[in-house]
Amino acid sequence: MKYLVTGGAGFVGSSIVDRLVVKSHQVIVYDNLSTGNEMFLNHSKDKILFIKADLLDTKRLNEAMQGVDFVFHMAANADVKDNLKNPTKCLEQNTTGTSNVLEAMRVNGVKNIAFASTGSVYGEPDVFPTPEDCKFPIQTSMYAASKLASEGLLEAYSIGYGIRVFIFRFVSLMGERYTHGCVFDFYKKLLNNSKELYILGDGKQKKSYLYIQDCLDAMFLAIENSTEKINIINLGTEEYVEVNFIADTLCEELGLNNVKYVYSGGKRGWVGDSPFILLDIKKMKALGWKPTFTIEECIKRTITWLRENQWVLKERQ
Amino acid sequence: MKYLVTGGAGFVGSSIVDRLVVKSHQVIVYDNLSTGNEMFLNHSKDKILFIKADLLDTKRLNEAMQGVDFVFHMAANADVKDNLKNPTKCLEQNTTGTSNVLEAMRVNGVKNIAFASTGSVYGEPDVFPTPEDCKFPIQTSMYAASKLASEGLLEAYSIGYGIRVFIFRFVSLMGERYTHGCVFDFYKKLLNNSKELYILGDGKQKKSYLYIQDCLDAMFLAIENSTEKINIINLGTEEYVEVNFIADTLCEELGLNNVKYVYSGGKRGWVGDSPFILLDIKKMKALGWKPTFTIEECIKRTITWLRENQWVLKERQ
Repeated sequence: MKYLVTGGAGFVGSSIVDRLVVKSHQVIVYDNLSTGNEMFLNHSKDKILFIKADLLDTKRLNEAMQGVDFVFHMAANADVKDNLKNPTKCLEQNTTGTSNVLEAMRVNGVKNIAFASTGSVYGEPDVFPTPEDCKFPIQTSMYAASKLASEGLLEAYSIGYGIRVFIFRFVSLMGERYTHGCVFDFYKKLLNNSKELYILGDGKQKKSYLYIQDCLDAMFLAIENSTEKINIINLGTEEYVEVNFIADTLCEELGLNNVKYVYSGGKRGWVGDSPFILLDIKKMKALGWKPTFTIEECIKRTITWLRENQWVLKERQ
Repeated sequence: MKYLVTGGAGFVGSSIVDRLVVKSHQVIVYDNLSTGNEMFLNHSKDKILFIKADLLDTKRLNEAMQGVDFVFHMAANADVKDNLKNPTKCLEQNTTGTSNVLEAMRVNGVKNIAFASTGSVYGEPDVFPTPEDCKFPIQTSMYAASKLASEGLLEAYSIGYGIRVFIFRFVSLMGERYTHGCVFDFYKKLLNNSKELYILGDGKQKKSYLYIQDCLDAMFLAIENSTEKINIINLGTEEYVEVNFIADTLCEELGLNNVKYVYSGGKRGWVGDSPFILLDIKKMKALGWKPTFTIEECIKRTITWLRENQWVLKERQ
């Protein structure tokens, strides 16, 4: 099979690429390297075709799509917390980007796509854990709005052109190659100043995390077992932690005592942040999957990887 | 107050303009005349500022937005049934268009917007009448997907920048200046051939319609009475009719007997069509509103208007 992985040099995308390469599939990585990193593809560079290009470059995207059987569409602007500084970036990179991917698929007759959506599309739900068919949500950030818009496009393309779609609504992912988010930010800050840690919100935001390899197990299992044209699946764990717990675990792992936490205050880390994310994962579990790592183990593995790969701290300023 | 009405030369937009002019407000009409018609503004042209421009022309849009207090954002590509022929048009005109409107508002400090969304965002719901907070829908057309995407942007802008938003999810509207949809198509076809009428689907699709002036009454009432930042409101009637009933009413009004109906077949009129639309209007009724015209009366008024304004048949090919 021939696969195209958008964002294939990123955290999730490059991890997918590894699995595809092991199975001897043909793999095209399409990435603009805005947040992705070629280092993640170094060990497999002879086995893949790497195209450095943007999703807004429809000419190159259309060319890249020729003969492809399956698209993993992982490329996105994931700058959730700073989305209000550049409000149109999410729409361009995520929604228009997804539209371009779907158009390239349509033109080239590509019939399968897996898409990285987000649990943030649920906004601030009133049911926890939140199931896929919870009530019609209200969007709280440009990021979530742009992902919901992409979901709608995927569904309309599925119904309009018979494309099989997998919409995976992730919680935050962690593990090897993680370079974006709370643990990353805290780790960097503590390296610079081990006395004090600035925490957005009141530290009591409740978040759920999933280990990258658990996530990929689920994605591949769902894809293998699907009989539906439109598949919408939550991916997370059955537990959550407070942001303070992440800070505590990090301090403990780094052997730091008496770090003073300074809070920006408020229930949310930023405007549009969800104070509580916990997804209902019954649908995925019914396929025989369950997460193998706890959030605590997941945080610890992430810290271990960051300690062994300090270069990523310099790359991502 | 200073109002900007996008799509202000269209069916709904120009009807809003009339109400604003009567109340002596300053009115800017922003319309690219792709489906709108200057004829609808002829009687008020000395009282408004008309700007012929596209929503994708951000320079003119930003200029037009200066000093505006309230935006009625009615401009859209409403070509629901042919959306698969040009799948990116809805995204460009509707979603990117809405993003441009919101950006122009943000830059100019405009804090209020009413938006014409659609009951089609509910896809094929399993609850009728369908309430605003029904379960998370799956999009069935590019048109609905582009409107849902716009809703998400409005919500995110509201939360991010404190803009007050009114999202009105309409059923199909009819009445004076109606120039697009089933009655229009049937009327045109019957003028050309009074023996036979080609009907998309099996004619049993159940649709709900609202009279334009009832719709405007509701919108203005909701806007006057709102205390929320984000207002999402269904607008429809408590009844529905089958497509066959529309054809029957039209034939009766035109004095045509023995018209043979020829069906394209299938439960849906086109790929992505909703076989049943009936919105729950409790929320709007709680504000003291109710529709004054039945669907039958609404169809008849529409036919009367079309008979008296045959020029629109030539304008809209």
